[in-house]
Amino acid sequence: MQNANNISIIGSGNVGHHLAKELSKVGVSVTHISGHNTKSDSGLANEIGAEVCEIEKLPKDQLVLICVRDEAINEVLEQLDNSIPAAYTSGSIQLNDLPERTDLGVFYPLQTFTKGRELNISQVPFFIEATNTDFSNRLMKLASEISENVNLASSTERKNMHVAAVMVNNFTNHILHEAKTYSDEHNIDFKHFLPLLNETVNKLKSDTPYDAQTGPARRGDQQTIEDHLNSLEGLSKEIYKLISDSIKRTYPKNDEL
Amino acid sequence: MQNANNISIIGSGNVGHHLAKELSKVGVSVTHISGHNTKSDSGLANEIGAEVCEIEKLPKDQLVLICVRDEAINEVLEQLDNSIPAAYTSGSIQLNDLPERTDLGVFYPLQTFTKGRELNISQVPFFIEATNTDFSNRLMKLASEISENVNLASSTERKNMHVAAVMVNNFTNHILHEAKTYSDEHNIDFKHFLPLLNETVNKLKSDTPYDAQTGPARRGDQQTIEDHLNSLEGLSKEIYKLISDSIKRTYPKNDEL
Repeated sequence: MQNANNISIIGSGNVGHHLAKELSKVGVSVTHISGHNTKSDSGLANEIGAEVCEIEKLPKDQLVLICVRDEAINEVLEQLDNSIPAAYTSGSIQLNDLPERTDLGVFYPLQTFTKGRELNISQVPFFIEATNTDFSNRLMKLASEISENVNLASSTERKNMHVAAVMVNNFTNHILHEAKTYSDEHNIDFKHFLPLLNETVNKLKSDTPYDAQTGPARRGDQQTIEDHLNSLEGLSKEIYKLISDSIKRTYPKNDEL
Repeated sequence: MQNANNISIIGSGNVGHHLAKELSKVGVSVTHISGHNTKSDSGLANEIGAEVCEIEKLPKDQLVLICVRDEAINEVLEQLDNSIPAAYTSGSIQLNDLPERTDLGVFYPLQTFTKGRELNISQVPFFIEATNTDFSNRLMKLASEISENVNLASSTERKNMHVAAVMVNNFTNHILHEAKTYSDEHNIDFKHFLPLLNETVNKLKSDTPYDAQTGPARRGDQQTIEDHLNSLEGLSKEIYKLISDSIKRTYPKNDEL
């Protein structure tokens, strides 16, 4: 008989930390924390009134959320008693690539988590998948306790989502790293760009990025593009050139200005 | 004798529109609007209680803000009586590239403006430059009426700033266009990525983009990168590859995970 209101969490990193605290807040009892980082595990356990426990000794009558790095999921599953229903939080690991198990599922929050940062989890989209409908229903219900945006998604859909998420988070962040590096080199305080960055993102609540685009490449202003390229070198120059080319091709006629 | 509290504005596009309204709000009298778009000019004039006026007939005893496209600034200056103090709002046009004039200056807001969108102008950085100190002081004072972040900047500094601003706004926006195109092609609702995007930007209030970076390229996870590249083609694939390479080179040892 499964205890529907108790769960265990493996991994006290960024994701485990946030999920443990958010689930506790809404009355789900996170009773056991497992992991390889004694200090972090016991810190989290203390914060939410759970106990630290070895993976092999986790209670068998309650769900486990596996919040570890992609490479470690397989190993964790091997240590975990086969009767325990388990869901992992990775976007890229396919359900089919893991060893068979009665109740295995995915509990994937599409967000970048950092310990200690407050986050409005109710707006974070969760994507659920499982080896059987009963278990996916159970995971949907659990995610709905903390988020207003809970969806079913296949492993393929989640993989596609991960490609786009890499662009949205990692690539925009890297472009901003490039901008900051350039600013630092030219003694410009990067803080001056934060209102511009906020507005860039805020616009997308009402406009598509296609409609929101402005700037020299959008206008086909080749003179400014050349001027800018002359002040760059190496990979930064290649990135400037390639993205400008891509913007120019996105608006081939520059006819909507 | 100059009337210190009255100004005229040439151009009723995105920038002219915002500046006219924000300056009016704080008690600066925007008395005259000039431009080439009769409907937009008179719409703005009506909104703020100004009159529409030909450039050649603008009052000579008050400052003019020239809020037109880069290519049109020269032409506007030629039509404007030489005794009128004038400042333009462009980031890229150098003061030295324009015809000489007693009081010529730059009144550059580092922001992307869209008519009809509310914007907290007090946080927008303004960068001021002028042919003489009295005039730059006057422009500093005017900008300080609406913004808490007013700075002097040379034409060279402004040009460098523009390079970084293109990255911060145009390039991140294009990456997001790429992500949205990919999502559309794979039937993923792009709205799911907005909380992730917001958090990407919010993190930069406390972290540098260098510290905030995560993802497959950051981890040196070549298998995931290859998987993702296989699902892309053309310029999108080139962008994915180049930015991933650049991220990998930014963290050569992957030693900070």
